[in-house]
Amino acid sequence: MEINIQKNVLEANETEADRNRKYFNENNVFVLNMMSSPGSGKTETLCKTLTKLAPKIRVGVLVGDICTTNDADRLAVTGAKVLQINTDQFGGDCHLAAHVVEKYALELGCEDLDLLIVENIGNLVCPAEFDIGEDAKAVMLSVTEGEDKPLKYPVIFQVADIAILNKIDLLPYLDFDAGLAVENMKKVHPQIPVFEIAAKTEEGLEPWIQWLKEKVAQKIGRK
Amino acid sequence: MEINIQKNVLEANETEADRNRKYFNENNVFVLNMMSSPGSGKTETLCKTLTKLAPKIRVGVLVGDICTTNDADRLAVTGAKVLQINTDQFGGDCHLAAHVVEKYALELGCEDLDLLIVENIGNLVCPAEFDIGEDAKAVMLSVTEGEDKPLKYPVIFQVADIAILNKIDLLPYLDFDAGLAVENMKKVHPQIPVFEIAAKTEEGLEPWIQWLKEKVAQKIGRK
Repeated sequence: MEINIQKNVLEANETEADRNRKYFNENNVFVLNMMSSPGSGKTETLCKTLTKLAPKIRVGVLVGDICTTNDADRLAVTGAKVLQINTDQFGGDCHLAAHVVEKYALELGCEDLDLLIVENIGNLVCPAEFDIGEDAKAVMLSVTEGEDKPLKYPVIFQVADIAILNKIDLLPYLDFDAGLAVENMKKVHPQIPVFEIAAKTEEGLEPWIQWLKEKVAQKIGRK
Repeated sequence: MEINIQKNVLEANETEADRNRKYFNENNVFVLNMMSSPGSGKTETLCKTLTKLAPKIRVGVLVGDICTTNDADRLAVTGAKVLQINTDQFGGDCHLAAHVVEKYALELGCEDLDLLIVENIGNLVCPAEFDIGEDAKAVMLSVTEGEDKPLKYPVIFQVADIAILNKIDLLPYLDFDAGLAVENMKKVHPQIPVFEIAAKTEEGLEPWIQWLKEKVAQKIGRK
């Protein structure tokens, strides 16, 4: 019974995600769904990344949190068009469902954007199951979270198109084997590209930014 | 409609949690529900804590993960009775529901225990909403996760009886204001006791262990 309810919710979400996909394609905007645990550094990474994309690439961000507009405030200074989604009005949802993304994407307006980033709720479980009509999914893991997380939370690493290993500037102070973490990512998703970065110091940001630029160019070229 | 389904699920869970509570009370075992993000250090904290409780306090642990038995393997060496719960067989659930805890608590057997710790799925959102019949809830935050997490994920801090701020040994290497983190916890839950610890170095463990011992003694004394 519980499984049927879950199936129905996911099927309804799929229909709404298809509607989003159509809207994003019509507006020729590349949409990236960024997922991670709370505090892995999604917002800091976006802050550092987006300043390097503007003004050539026109960026919008929908930033999901249960409460507060902290992240939107931080991101607004990059020059991106930013809208905060607070899920406390949707029952404190632990993920962004497609219909929630639709509501806010329409409010933000995608007509003048090349890239829309959806910073999902900090959660390594639920966001993995909800298609939002995005072009690609990124999963971020911080080196403070333990090498075994890809094995313990495999679904999010399986559905992601790329993985970002963040906070590598902290490696000297941790018992964390970055090689093992990447190996575990590839155990659950063999071909996944992994970008090792330190958002704070901007180490390793370039390949990830290059990946983003290529994806945006491909989508625009597909016009 | 979605809200009604959620309400029904939570009501069904409440009935099952009441059944658990009865079972735990009959067996005179203090039950603590430990919640946090993935990688905050629940397992490491329990490894260090449980060796200090045995053999005087007889401890059982139910450890929830979507996949793997890594955590159960780590905890087994403490001498506690440990059982791994993998939620991939329950649709990859992002929290431990009361009926799942019931199944495993019965399998573990609480007759010979003074303390049962339920290490919940790493998730700062969903576990907060599911009563499992426990005596107390603990929420853990790691100093690598950002001071604003209590404001962004307030429910879990509101329902928790205590908070643990872990990995304070990393403070010298981070821009993290521990005072502000505690202040934010108290903003959403003014009276919450906060234990600042470093599980790895065992700094600050004693007050938290003392709290646990007192709670167990109170429950046993209530016999």
